[in-house]
Amino acid sequence: MTDLIDRSIPELARGLRDGTVKAEALAEAAIARHNRYGKKLNAYKLWKPEAAKRAARAASMLFKNGIDLGPMQGIPVSIKDLFAANGWPTFAGTPKRLPREYEVEGPVVAALRAQQAVFPGKTHTVEFAYGGIGSNIHWGTPRNPWDAKQHRVPGGSSSGAGVSLCEGSAWIALGTDTGGSVRIPASLTGTVGIKTSIGRWSRAGIVPLSPIFDTPGILARSVEDAAVAFAVIDPHAKTPPAPRDVAGLRIGVCERLFFEDCGPGIVEGVQRSLKELAKAGAKVTKFDLPSLKPVYECFRQGGVVSVEFYEFLQAKLPKWIDTLDPMVVQRFIKAREMSATEFLRRCRLFNEAAQVAAERMASIDVMVTPTIAIAAPTLKEVSTVEGYAPNNLKVLRNTSIGNLMSMCAITMPVALDKKRMPVGLQLMAPCGHDERLLGIALGFERVLGNGRSRIGRPPMCR
Amino acid sequence: MTDLIDRSIPELARGLRDGTVKAEALAEAAIARHNRYGKKLNAYKLWKPEAAKRAARAASMLFKNGIDLGPMQGIPVSIKDLFAANGWPTFAGTPKRLPREYEVEGPVVAALRAQQAVFPGKTHTVEFAYGGIGSNIHWGTPRNPWDAKQHRVPGGSSSGAGVSLCEGSAWIALGTDTGGSVRIPASLTGTVGIKTSIGRWSRAGIVPLSPIFDTPGILARSVEDAAVAFAVIDPHAKTPPAPRDVAGLRIGVCERLFFEDCGPGIVEGVQRSLKELAKAGAKVTKFDLPSLKPVYECFRQGGVVSVEFYEFLQAKLPKWIDTLDPMVVQRFIKAREMSATEFLRRCRLFNEAAQVAAERMASIDVMVTPTIAIAAPTLKEVSTVEGYAPNNLKVLRNTSIGNLMSMCAITMPVALDKKRMPVGLQLMAPCGHDERLLGIALGFERVLGNGRSRIGRPPMCR
Repeated sequence: MTDLIDRSIPELARGLRDGTVKAEALAEAAIARHNRYGKKLNAYKLWKPEAAKRAARAASMLFKNGIDLGPMQGIPVSIKDLFAANGWPTFAGTPKRLPREYEVEGPVVAALRAQQAVFPGKTHTVEFAYGGIGSNIHWGTPRNPWDAKQHRVPGGSSSGAGVSLCEGSAWIALGTDTGGSVRIPASLTGTVGIKTSIGRWSRAGIVPLSPIFDTPGILARSVEDAAVAFAVIDPHAKTPPAPRDVAGLRIGVCERLFFEDCGPGIVEGVQRSLKELAKAGAKVTKFDLPSLKPVYECFRQGGVVSVEFYEFLQAKLPKWIDTLDPMVVQRFIKAREMSATEFLRRCRLFNEAAQVAAERMASIDVMVTPTIAIAAPTLKEVSTVEGYAPNNLKVLRNTSIGNLMSMCAITMPVALDKKRMPVGLQLMAPCGHDERLLGIALGFERVLGNGRSRIGRPPMCR
Repeated sequence: MTDLIDRSIPELARGLRDGTVKAEALAEAAIARHNRYGKKLNAYKLWKPEAAKRAARAASMLFKNGIDLGPMQGIPVSIKDLFAANGWPTFAGTPKRLPREYEVEGPVVAALRAQQAVFPGKTHTVEFAYGGIGSNIHWGTPRNPWDAKQHRVPGGSSSGAGVSLCEGSAWIALGTDTGGSVRIPASLTGTVGIKTSIGRWSRAGIVPLSPIFDTPGILARSVEDAAVAFAVIDPHAKTPPAPRDVAGLRIGVCERLFFEDCGPGIVEGVQRSLKELAKAGAKVTKFDLPSLKPVYECFRQGGVVSVEFYEFLQAKLPKWIDTLDPMVVQRFIKAREMSATEFLRRCRLFNEAAQVAAERMASIDVMVTPTIAIAAPTLKEVSTVEGYAPNNLKVLRNTSIGNLMSMCAITMPVALDKKRMPVGLQLMAPCGHDERLLGIALGFERVLGNGRSRIGRPPMCR
């Protein structure tokens, strides 16, 4: 059983096709892992083992009849409860089930279902996905399995996504990323996260937070696994990109902002991995992005998402406002006072910075930074507004730039910090370069190893 | 000479290729027409006969050397002074030349230049294109050639575009349409106007008014001519669409809002043309679009364009604010007070209406309305704020819905009203259906005739 859990998606896909792996057994293994760890970790809002078993039987039946729908056939995938999934309720982290229009499946889930992927359930999310910490007063906060002693947060808003991968109930976890909500939980749980370029994947069937910045994405245990799912979901990529040779790759290291005030061991972990990449032939150079500070300062002031979110609630879900988590509500109170011209000024600031960044980044193959500046805080540290606000801004700092400057980005685990918590390396490229970036991440993974080989298993899931 | 002026672009294109027409002679004919009518009509901000002659000689030389760059080679095209054209200043209807960044040619002009089209100059525009009447206190208001007695306005904001076609100095006139600025001058001058779907043609190299609604477009003397230029500029269409057979076409007539309070003879002119189309086999039925009134009411309140425009000036051209025409400035004063949530609420109203409209319109092939509810007012009638405001709203009413509900649209001249001023028939289809709509307009033109055959020449250009 453990054996199945440790295999990559390409290995499982081969096994499922040569008959050495049964989809039913894979689903059973995933369910058994959840039964073992799930209660402590609390990754799922909706846990559906029977549905998963049925889907696995169907996948198996198809294989028996020689029908191969693609590489995700029979592979367990968890779905963030911000995505509609046909037949299942959507709560979006709120106390009340959302209206039916938010339960109509969109293209991302549909692409996986079309290959007869196996969905064991829907994972927890921060209420309306508005927050990077991962806490939720209505449904509890999934536990980060990298600290067996204290309840550390899993990162958010896709708070159950990374944890579902750690516990072994899913190989791919669907998430969304508006300011870092895929990359933060991925980095804090030692998994891989892909934030796609804006507009690349449809947001239909996903509860909106910010039409300007929302992007669907995926988490996985390795870049190799992520690449398989990426190519299945992506409307442009036909197959996973080939790994790029690291030799000769121009890696730009942006120290300004991104390397400042990081927790103990984080910069060191990133620097070690860069040395290994340099040893493999990469050209690692310093790289500086203009407008970083004004863009981040504008984000700190609430950016534009607070207004988009507030207007959405008013227009579509006014009854959900009264029950909002104070950690969520306190961050859009100022939004009501913003003027329309100020809103557009902020959009212009972000757009112009994105354009300049894209031009500047043409001189390198990839920009790298630590994904998150700090280790996952304990739940206690973020349980007051005073503790929540600075920690939330800090976990979002390095990821938000990717959204604000219209980039695609990937995080991969490369080290453990001084607290023995995972450190993510963030790879960034301009909008639309998703496939190229994924090829580079695959190249990095060949040199650095994947999460399992590099940082091992989370202490709570050994 | 008159002979050349009366020919369609396809006829001229044949002549240029079989040697019976010389590009130089065509340019000379266009220049002679301008010399004859230009002073009275005032279509051009920048008149460049020598540049036109040089371009015509180049086009001719290419033909002689067997080089055929495409159907616009040697054809005179006027450019609205909102577009950058390499080597020429951009004033955008303002008293001061704009900074150099607004003089870098974009893809629309470049596509025509790449075929060695002949540009005789840049036509007048309403200041920053913000207005439908066509008046301009800085540079004068082009005269509508359909009234020889009184100075009637030409429609705007592409105020010189339709007039340049009437006088015969251009076969195609480039314009932009944010609330009707291509269709209004086309309808009021008895020419054809195409408002493209949002996002279909690049806005690079065009001074922005509203990034949400701005669309480049073209005016021409016939749908046939417009179709040639459309296929040259359009990145998707390879050739002009084939004319659709009118027999069996489902024409939806939307009377609510569009047919209300129209000037004398306008509805009658439209109804006559619909009877002719029905006689040719079209299925003409009543059709109703939801949300018309709230959407138009929101537009009347300033919509979102006023805010976008104000923010743009503040950010990019603050020195141009003090000299703004009072007719322009009075319409965005309220914009400064709008909240960001109100701005987004309006965007949502328009988006949702557009989505419902597109679904509803699937039951017909094309929706038709009068293009403009009133005849072109006299310049005197719109020379005070009190006279300007209601007339401006009235000329924009029927066209603005197409922008607000994200449609593509075409206007073609079908009648003269009681004042002997041209009446336009507006054809509308959902976003992205540009080629299909153009095919239908070509079908209509086969039944109804083009402007010349149907309503004759403007009295001032006979």
